[in-house]
Parts: sequence; structure tokens; C-alpha cells
Amino acid sequence: MVNSNAAWLSRRLSALGFRVARHVVLPDDLPAMVREFRSAFGRAELVVLTGGLGPTVDDLTRAAAARAAGRPLERLPRVLAAVRAFWERRGRTMPEANAVQADLPHGAAMVPNPVGTAPGFAFRARRALAVALPGVPGELEAMFDGTVEGMLRRAFPRLPSVAVRELHLIGLAEGEVDARLRGIAAPGGNPRLSLMVGAGVVTVRLVATGRTAAAARRTLAGVETEVRALFGTRVFGQDGEDIADVVVALLRRRGKTLAVAESCTGGLIGHLVTGVPGASDVFVEGRVTYADISKRRLLGVPAGVLARHGAVSRETAVAMARGARRRSGADVAVAVTGIAGPGGGSAAKPVGLVWIAVCDGRRVRSGELRLFGDRSAVKQRAARLALDLVRTTVAPRR
Amino acid sequence: MVNSNAAWLSRRLSALGFRVARHVVLPDDLPAMVREFRSAFGRAELVVLTGGLGPTVDDLTRAAAARAAGRPLERLPRVLAAVRAFWERRGRTMPEANAVQADLPHGAAMVPNPVGTAPGFAFRARRALAVALPGVPGELEAMFDGTVEGMLRRAFPRLPSVAVRELHLIGLAEGEVDARLRGIAAPGGNPRLSLMVGAGVVTVRLVATGRTAAAARRTLAGVETEVRALFGTRVFGQDGEDIADVVVALLRRRGKTLAVAESCTGGLIGHLVTGVPGASDVFVEGRVTYADISKRRLLGVPAGVLARHGAVSRETAVAMARGARRRSGADVAVAVTGIAGPGGGSAAKPVGLVWIAVCDGRRVRSGELRLFGDRSAVKQRAARLALDLVRTTVAPRR
Repeated sequence: MVNSNAAWLSRRLSALGFRVARHVVLPDDLPAMVREFRSAFGRAELVVLTGGLGPTVDDLTRAAAARAAGRPLERLPRVLAAVRAFWERRGRTMPEANAVQADLPHGAAMVPNPVGTAPGFAFRARRALAVALPGVPGELEAMFDGTVEGMLRRAFPRLPSVAVRELHLIGLAEGEVDARLRGIAAPGGNPRLSLMVGAGVVTVRLVATGRTAAAARRTLAGVETEVRALFGTRVFGQDGEDIADVVVALLRRRGKTLAVAESCTGGLIGHLVTGVPGASDVFVEGRVTYADISKRRLLGVPAGVLARHGAVSRETAVAMARGARRRSGADVAVAVTGIAGPGGGSAAKPVGLVWIAVCDGRRVRSGELRLFGDRSAVKQRAARLALDLVRTTVAPRR
Repeated sequence: MVNSNAAWLSRRLSALGFRVARHVVLPDDLPAMVREFRSAFGRAELVVLTGGLGPTVDDLTRAAAARAAGRPLERLPRVLAAVRAFWERRGRTMPEANAVQADLPHGAAMVPNPVGTAPGFAFRARRALAVALPGVPGELEAMFDGTVEGMLRRAFPRLPSVAVRELHLIGLAEGEVDARLRGIAAPGGNPRLSLMVGAGVVTVRLVATGRTAAAARRTLAGVETEVRALFGTRVFGQDGEDIADVVVALLRRRGKTLAVAESCTGGLIGHLVTGVPGASDVFVEGRVTYADISKRRLLGVPAGVLARHGAVSRETAVAMARGARRRSGADVAVAVTGIAGPGGGSAAKPVGLVWIAVCDGRRVRSGELRLFGDRSAVKQRAARLALDLVRTTVAPRR
């Protein structure tokens, strides 16, 4: 199972009231898969299998599932038609090798895949309901939302009532968040608090249980209010929102447009912003100015600023933001310049030093970051903290 | 364990001659972790634990490892000094809560972390050598390369000889690669062939065993030659190389520079290229022109081209590449324009339609892509196929 799938599924299944007891990743080895599937089918009430639904000889999930459930594989015409139709909608012909994707364990129900070629399926095996989904995250998520969630609610009508909230924080270290949270009392550990970390974002997850859905939500709400009060504007979003989602939604609400000027992030901010469907409503354009000459030519950063302060400086970041705003005609511009490493650092300007700036026509805000980690970590954190500076500039003061 | 860690570790451990029998992901639950660790320590010769080495109450790996190995936790001054020193090198003071990161099972050896705050450690437990590493991929990889690999070679001098080669292919569907590979005979299944897929790239992995390292390499070499002959220039790299690594290295060898013009990929090509250390030698600048007005203003795409052919067309892609090359002064320019979805598609121009173009001053090459998947998948595939067009344009003809 792919990591992002594991985290995503675990979140969704917990929210439905399942206790996720175990997550096993297996090699592409038929006997090992059959053994593990059989033992899972005897132990759990729900088993989700992901990956291995492609057309190749390595894609063993169909065969292993059938064998572990003690059922033959059957080629289902309805499923085959769905696979073919997918290729045809793209103006292509299905390779005949892909017909194996229509071979399902006897009695299985197809789970339609609206965004890819591999159909999923659900079947009963020993005491479990088993659901097989493709490993591609976008496909798995679309199928879970479209079909599997409803199927699980019907199959498990007596699940305990659970309320889940994830609060996403930015600009604080994990240890700092953890230390502050120790003051929050959750009687009986309900809701249960846990922390997750990734790319400069710390997530506080609250899982409350109750006799009814309303009771679980009430228990959650009290502690959620406390946590929000503790961290104030450091909470930028909730329940899986990315900082780019929040910034795009905020700009749209305010009717404002955005331009981007990137040096060390190399296009990542533009990539994150344009990853949000409908970003074209607010995103005007980006300039990736890696070389000094590009900063001058594409953003109009004065040669004197570069000579006096260097490319990694508050002054250059501010000039980049001003230049991007003026030349794009956007309402707001954000700029980043820094040293992502591994080379290019010095004692005065070490690897991980990044300057960010935002300009909205009324004022210019800038900030110095000292980031940990390798080149990729520095880029990922710098891009998100720059977007956060857009958020706090455009959002109302509290 | 994070997915990318699992795949990466599995590749590296296989290459050292280990058979990776099992990969388990556990919730942050001390009794469950102790139970699973204890059973692993009794079953395997090597157990790698990843994640849970941070400073928070959720970071339970140290405690669970000590308990499962039947040893007390001890705060080691040398480890504490290393954690403190890391913070100080960044001009910051270690929060006192982070001192717990120096608590290791009695008798454990520290595995230094050159790029992050969490040190790892190695210890003997029952029949196993156990190694605990942080979950952040960049940290884990640096520690494995810097310390763990040598440690394993010393601890396991009798590992079987293994030779591994991964060949990365682009521009072919997984089913197509699989079908063509069926003609390749590997007597006794040595080397073993397997396929992996991600973001438009299909990887053929060959794992050969032999009585000696030289014998394993010979067995590998014969089949590798066959596979390379089968796929020709569709093989763009090997052993974990990304298409961006290959393109940056190729441009550097040729002494050529690159500029990028992106519409639907939104900055992703720039991000991929600048993810390669030393990219500044070859990468001049990028223009992310989402709106038509930006394509005109930043790239000089004629209004007539946009009006006659639309923003997603061969003509626009070509004009974007020409404009990027002319305005940047780079030797080579690449452009992408397409419909990433979910909105914006039509019968004539469906979601997933992307045009790419490369211009090197002597000629212009362009290509039409019809991509599957959601917005993110279309962006990821389009960016890599565009970089591949740079590769085949700059590389010598065969």
C-alpha cells in the first residue's frame, strides 16, 4: 500500500468508526499474498486491499484475493466493457492484455473507477468484507468517495459514532506544538489527540467517540475550540486542506489575483497553486528567476540591490515581489529567494536561509526563514511558508 | 513506514542481498508496537524501524524498541550533544522537550543524522540486528548511505551476491512494456524481472543472484542488454534517476542551457529541474503563463495564434517554446499547454489533452499527449514527457 494511501484511508476509515488495527505491505509474491489475505479475512471485519490491479504479470491482487477467499476468478463482461469504454473515451483501443483486469473473484461486485483503467471490486471472504482498490492515489480516493463509503455504511450499520477534526498549523515546530498541547485536558482521552508532520505543516488530529453522532461532535467541539484558541492564526486549515487550497479560496473570496516570483523554490509555488482546481480564477502568472540576470530582466530587480545585498536578502525578495506585482498586474505578489543546498551556502548565508516577501499594493511584508533539511525539504517548506505569508496578508487581522 | 521509504529501503536492502520478507505499518500505540517489534526481533535477522523518533509524546519508537529488546532507556550525553549541536549550527536553541531524542535503549549505537534533528540508533535484540531511522525520507536516505550500509556489510559478511539494475522507461504504457518483456527468457527466473509504475514512468527491475558478485553481474548483464535493445531510447535512465536528473546532466555535458514555458503544469517542470543539485548551471528561467494574456505578454505568443488555434494547440505550444527561447537567451526551450481538468474539457479538446514543444534554434519538435488520470496525474505525466522531449532533442540520434 502506498504511504499516502495508508494515511488517507486510515483517516477516512477512522472517521467512519472503524478501528484500523493493522496495515501490511507485501511483496508481489502470490503465496505470501494468499497467506496474508486469508489470515486478514479471518481476523478483521473489513479488509481493504490496494494496488496490484493493473494488467501485468506482477499484478497479483485479483488472483490472490480469489484464492484466499476460496473462489474461482471469472471474466465479467460488464467489467470488461467498462475497461474498454475507458480507453475508447480517450480515443484509444484497449490492449488485449488489459482484458485480465475484468477477471474478478466469483460473486464480487465491481467498484467503478471514474478516473483510471483499473476497476476495483468488493466481495465477502470468511468473516470479512474485502474491498480491492487500485494503488494510484487519485483513483483510490475517487472510488472510495464515489462508491466505497456508501457501501461500508450499508454493510456496517452499527459502527460507533465518531467525530474527527484535523487542524493544520504552519510556522511552528512539532515539539513546540506538542509542548503547548500538554496543557489541554481531554478527560478519559476523549477526544484522542495526535500529531502528524510534513513539509512545514503540523497537523493536530482529534478523534472523539460518543453514543450518538451528536454526542461525539459535542465532545470534539469543546476541545477543538481550546486548540484553535491556543494557536490562533497559526491554524490555516482543516481536514486535509493544503495551504494552497486555503490561499486560492481566500483570494477568490476577496476577488483578488496572485502573481508569483520564485528563485530557490524553482516553480513549486506555481505548481502548488495550480494544483487547486479552478486556480485559473486567481492565478495570473509566475516567473522563475534562478539566475541574477533573470531577476533583473523578468522582475526588474535593480542591479544595485543585487550587488549590495546579494540575491538572498530581504531587499532582493522585496524587489522581486514588487516587480512581479507591477509587471503582472496582479493584486498580490509573493516572492522567494534562498539557498536550498546542498551547495551555495556560506557562514553568513547558510543552506536553509530563505527570504520571502509579499506585496499587495498597500504594504510589503517580508520574512527570514532558517530551514532544516535537504534541498527538497527546504523547497517544500519555503513554498508553503511563502503561501502562508500571502494568507496572513490577505486575511483580515484578528 | 512512509511509502517512498519502503520502496527505497526495499531496493537498497535487496541490492545488499537481503530478502525483504515483510513490511508492517503500525499505529502510534505502545503495546501494539512492542508486540510487533518483539515478534520481528525473533523472526528476522535484520529489522529496520522507521519514524517515531521525534520529540513528541506520539514518538514511541525509542520506548517500544527498548521494551521489546528487554533493555532500559538511557539518555546518552554524546547523542544529546549531537542534537543540541544541530540546533546551534542553525543559530537556534534546542527546545528542552527535544532532549528525549537522546534516550536510546541500553547498549545502542547512535546512527548520526547529518540533515535533521532526530538521531537514529542500532542495537541487538534477540536474533536480530535492529536499526531505527527517522521517517523523513531525506534524513533516512542520508543516514542509510552514510552509516547503515557499511554497518550492515560488516554485520552480515555472508550475504548472497546480488546484482540489481533498474531501467526507467518513458512514453510507454505499463501493459505494453509487460507484453514486450514476455519475449525475454530468464532461465530459472534469474534475473527476476518486475515492473513498477509512477507518473508516466515504467521501471523494469532486474535482480540477479550468483555465487559471487561477478557471477551475479554477468547474469544481470546479458538480460539487461536484451531489455535495453528491446526499448531503445525509451530507456531514459537507471537506478533511481529521475528524468530531470538525466536532462540536467545531458544539458551540462553538451554545455547547453534551458528555459521553460509552462501553462497547465503550472511550474512543475521548473520545480523538477531545480530539484536537481547544481541545476543552476543549466537552468536559466521559467515563465508560468496560465492566462492567455500572460502567454502574449511573457512569451510573445501572437494573439492571432491564440484566436485561431486556441491556447491548447500545437501552434500555441510552438509559439510558447520559441518565445521562451528568444526572450531568455537559452539554447533550448520547452513549452507545455494542456487541460489538466477536472473542468475546461470539451469534446474536441478533452481533459488530458496536452501539447508539448521543444525548440533548440535549429528545429522545433512538438507532440500531442492524451493523458489519463486526475489533475495531479496529468500535470505529473505532462511535465515528465515534456522533459523527455528535451532529452531526445538534445541527445544524439541513434
